[in-house]
Amino acid sequence: MKLTTRLAVFCSGAILSGAALAATPEPAKSQKHAEAYSEYREALFTLMKSNMAPLGGMAKGAIEYDAQVMQTNGMRMEQLANMISDYLKVDTREFDVHTHAKPELWDNYADVESKIENLQSAAANLQKVAKAGDESAYRDAIGKVGSTCKSCHDDYKAD
Amino acid sequence: MKLTTRLAVFCSGAILSGAALAATPEPAKSQKHAEAYSEYREALFTLMKSNMAPLGGMAKGAIEYDAQVMQTNGMRMEQLANMISDYLKVDTREFDVHTHAKPELWDNYADVESKIENLQSAAANLQKVAKAGDESAYRDAIGKVGSTCKSCHDDYKAD
Repeated sequence: MKLTTRLAVFCSGAILSGAALAATPEPAKSQKHAEAYSEYREALFTLMKSNMAPLGGMAKGAIEYDAQVMQTNGMRMEQLANMISDYLKVDTREFDVHTHAKPELWDNYADVESKIENLQSAAANLQKVAKAGDESAYRDAIGKVGSTCKSCHDDYKAD
Repeated sequence: MKLTTRLAVFCSGAILSGAALAATPEPAKSQKHAEAYSEYREALFTLMKSNMAPLGGMAKGAIEYDAQVMQTNGMRMEQLANMISDYLKVDTREFDVHTHAKPELWDNYADVESKIENLQSAAANLQKVAKAGDESAYRDAIGKVGSTCKSCHDDYKAD
């Protein structure tokens, strides 16, 4: 792959500000571009999962509450949530890629962004609650994060 | 996999503060644990690559400088750099996993962390330089980030 092609693959998703949403979907420009963005999306949600899993265990009572883990993982989930739209907005439907994204994701992008905002808020709230140290609020704060994950998966993630 | 096993897989890397380093390697507890952390590491460096690629293009003159991309991607690389140690410190040498990590990574972990700190500093500097808006400093700031990547890859990443 030539350098210019390689750059085109990587650049379209990168021109954007921190957490600002209100993006519109952009069709992937080539098979390579579509493959790159499918790979990035999968990587992003893999890291999200690694942060959410111990919190789920806490909410279920399978492991003890740890406010430090809640705070750190909440911060990381918020940072990752701020990256989601830049990777998701590349519409890969016209290419043959391995993806869990349902095609309707790009038809309802305003809704997708509203769900991303809910995750950002829930992750910020998790940090706030962890910092306050009131253990009776932990489970609810974790549950709110889980609900925002599920809300998007239900509508836009294929099994 | 039972819930408790699944939690053990995910939890050991999560108990840690934001950017604080000085961790010591921890042997992976099981094949599943080792596989999970190999997957997380790969995901993390995939996202790092997606942020670095357009900066590399700018430094080579293949695409135009864009201070906003430099600032956003610099911020994201710093956030991702702050996560590296928590994923890398899980020593997967005793298990059969797909990994690019050379075995000596876990023998020289203080050096690995010092290289991570260099990346954190270079990513922070990138944002500072982008914000200052002096285009003559852009290439050098990007080059510094690239050097820190290379420094670690040379010693600890297998092809």
